[in-house]
Amino acid sequence: MLSHIVEATGRNLAADAGDSLERIRRQSPPIHCLTNTVAQTLTANLLLAVGARPAMSMALDEIDHMVADSGALVVNLGTLDEARRAAMTRAVAVAGRHHTPWVLDPVMVDRSPPRLEFARALMRQRPAAVRGNADEIAALAGKADAGGLARQAATVVAETGPVDVVCDASRVIRLRRGHPLMARVTGLGCAASGLVAAFCAVERDPLQAAAQALLVLGAAAEMAALSAAGPASFQIALLDRLHSLGAGDLEERNP
Amino acid sequence: MLSHIVEATGRNLAADAGDSLERIRRQSPPIHCLTNTVAQTLTANLLLAVGARPAMSMALDEIDHMVADSGALVVNLGTLDEARRAAMTRAVAVAGRHHTPWVLDPVMVDRSPPRLEFARALMRQRPAAVRGNADEIAALAGKADAGGLARQAATVVAETGPVDVVCDASRVIRLRRGHPLMARVTGLGCAASGLVAAFCAVERDPLQAAAQALLVLGAAAEMAALSAAGPASFQIALLDRLHSLGAGDLEERNP
Amino acid sequence: MLSHIVEATGRNLAADAGDSLERIRRQSPPIHCLTNTVAQTLTANLLLAVGARPAMSMALDEIDHMVADSGALVVNLGTLDEARRAAMTRAVAVAGRHHTPWVLDPVMVDRSPPRLEFARALMRQRPAAVRGNADEIAALAGKADAGGLARQAATVVAETGPVDVVCDASRVIRLRRGHPLMARVTGLGCAASGLVAAFCAVERDPLQAAAQALLVLGAAAEMAALSAAGPASFQIALLDRLHSLGAGDLEERNP
Repeated sequence: MLSHIVEATGRNLAADAGDSLERIRRQSPPIHCLTNTVAQTLTANLLLAVGARPAMSMALDEIDHMVADSGALVVNLGTLDEARRAAMTRAVAVAGRHHTPWVLDPVMVDRSPPRLEFARALMRQRPAAVRGNADEIAALAGKADAGGLARQAATVVAETGPVDVVCDASRVIRLRRGHPLMARVTGLGCAASGLVAAFCAVERDPLQAAAQALLVLGAAAEMAALSAAGPASFQIALLDRLHSLGAGDLEERNP
Repeated sequence: MLSHIVEATGRNLAADAGDSLERIRRQSPPIHCLTNTVAQTLTANLLLAVGARPAMSMALDEIDHMVADSGALVVNLGTLDEARRAAMTRAVAVAGRHHTPWVLDPVMVDRSPPRLEFARALMRQRPAAVRGNADEIAALAGKADAGGLARQAATVVAETGPVDVVCDASRVIRLRRGHPLMARVTGLGCAASGLVAAFCAVERDPLQAAAQALLVLGAAAEMAALSAAGPASFQIALLDRLHSLGAGDLEERNP
Repeated sequence: MLSHIVEATGRNLAADAGDSLERIRRQSPPIHCLTNTVAQTLTANLLLAVGARPAMSMALDEIDHMVADSGALVVNLGTLDEARRAAMTRAVAVAGRHHTPWVLDPVMVDRSPPRLEFARALMRQRPAAVRGNADEIAALAGKADAGGLARQAATVVAETGPVDVVCDASRVIRLRRGHPLMARVTGLGCAASGLVAAFCAVERDPLQAAAQALLVLGAAAEMAALSAAGPASFQIALLDRLHSLGAGDLEERNP
């Protein structure tokens, strides 16, 4: 269960993830996060734990300055309202003009038709990656699968769950890392999308960036679960571990 | 101080609470939470800890879909603004049409006249239960007491404090559980209202549901306090305990 | 590194801070916090840990009642939007009429020109104190330094960092307390501004109030760091320590 499987890439994911993590710590890229109010604090703390610099403003008159300054952007559809839609539409346009990579998190699009429609409109603006759970990716993909969605939208799709599947039009990486307690921490999926954005700020290939981010998160989660008494102490240990994680912690443990 | 007192019901509250908790874990009811931004994260984590599935959208065009899907709704008046009022009014109407139980948390109605007026208007839409502290319940009740408020509004009133009093028009349950550190964790009362909603999703009698939820929370709090060094480690231990709580933990310890 | 340096005041800062902390615990002053959604929960928990009573409403029709009732107000410019600007403008006017001390936290004014402009307008409404990091204070001060800004605006300026500098038109206090992990906890600077407000509610001299609050926070941070495994367990230990901190914990340890 702790092993990870890398397919169709000629690179050592763990070594590359360690290199990217080191670059994040050294460069402290600003990451702009348009994310839901439930997940904001955890997302910010998770980004600070790895050394990135989160900012969270939704104000229309600040978006241009802040997104233009950022190494990456994450757009998360939780607690969606009119003000957030307007901010997201503008932020994505600014990111497009500055060639800033951005990550879409289509939270609960499977439970809200208007949210699904908005997510599809955003997909046409070329996110570097989309990160969601199986239900969310299935809703976005319609009759296709994750790979089909990646091809249609010319983006990277990262579907997280017991097995994480990261794919683009031609490549796929599967990871079997992490721990079931991850599902009991609110906003951890959203924070994972923020981490994918942080890796996109230092790694040009978004397939690699997404897989590296999920490997780092999964490895930290496995270590955190060893000492956790439940979901809350697990979250604390997870953030602590992300802060101190070394390249050696990322290697496959049961090859 | 750790004993609980059950009056005027012929049922074993601890055994029933254990059964309901088991049903929540098995059924994972979606609980829609229109709650303040300060309490959202704790409410979501507390609901996840017991096995429920929280959602938090306030967007008018999503309310209908999400409330219709939910096992229960909680309406919390903290950080109240126009958008929240509109969302709450609509959510309560949808809940009424679908016979979905909903819980009102009249946060700080004792400190804000406009909020008190809005709370009274919501009370006329028949919540399954109202959960508040003594000041909030007193403000709502005017010249009556908790029992009088329950009779007037034909609802269950759950007043929490050193002694929790849960009553409807004819019955009353008093619980002396919990720990003073609960008052030092922001949003824990709000999260308690969310837990009452979760129990309403699996237990038809809202008096029982409210009392069971408060018993579960109080028992977990007592256990958490044993290892806590202060309010923050107390909150972590409380969520961990809720995650692993068994029926045996709910029995009266000093009969 | 653990020593603190007090300049240009004839008072014992540690003893005074202990006295103020005792008054906060005894009086439980209500502190109104107009703060960003990322920092709300930590700010509320930090205020509860020291015994103050936080409230967070942004609603225009509630501001008057709630600010008029409060011992102090904090105005924090994070996640700034139109509704927040309107609430802040009104809250500051109410505070002015009631002679309620208020603290400005100019979050990220160095990264957002519209935010900087709004901060400057608020500065003209006479905050008791301004608390920010070096970049934020530099943006506000323009060509002046912290002392120049304090003189121009006739306020107390508290610039936090490895060394905290608290000054007004004629006095300066420097503190070398705290721990680098403080920079890895999102919203901790914002919560520090809330703590300055709480001290302003019980100490008339805002220079003393700001320095006392930063001393208390720094001392608790040093103690928390001794047992922390990373930024998340550090935050938990910090809140626990603030809850139990005694006057003896505030004395200079390396005189």
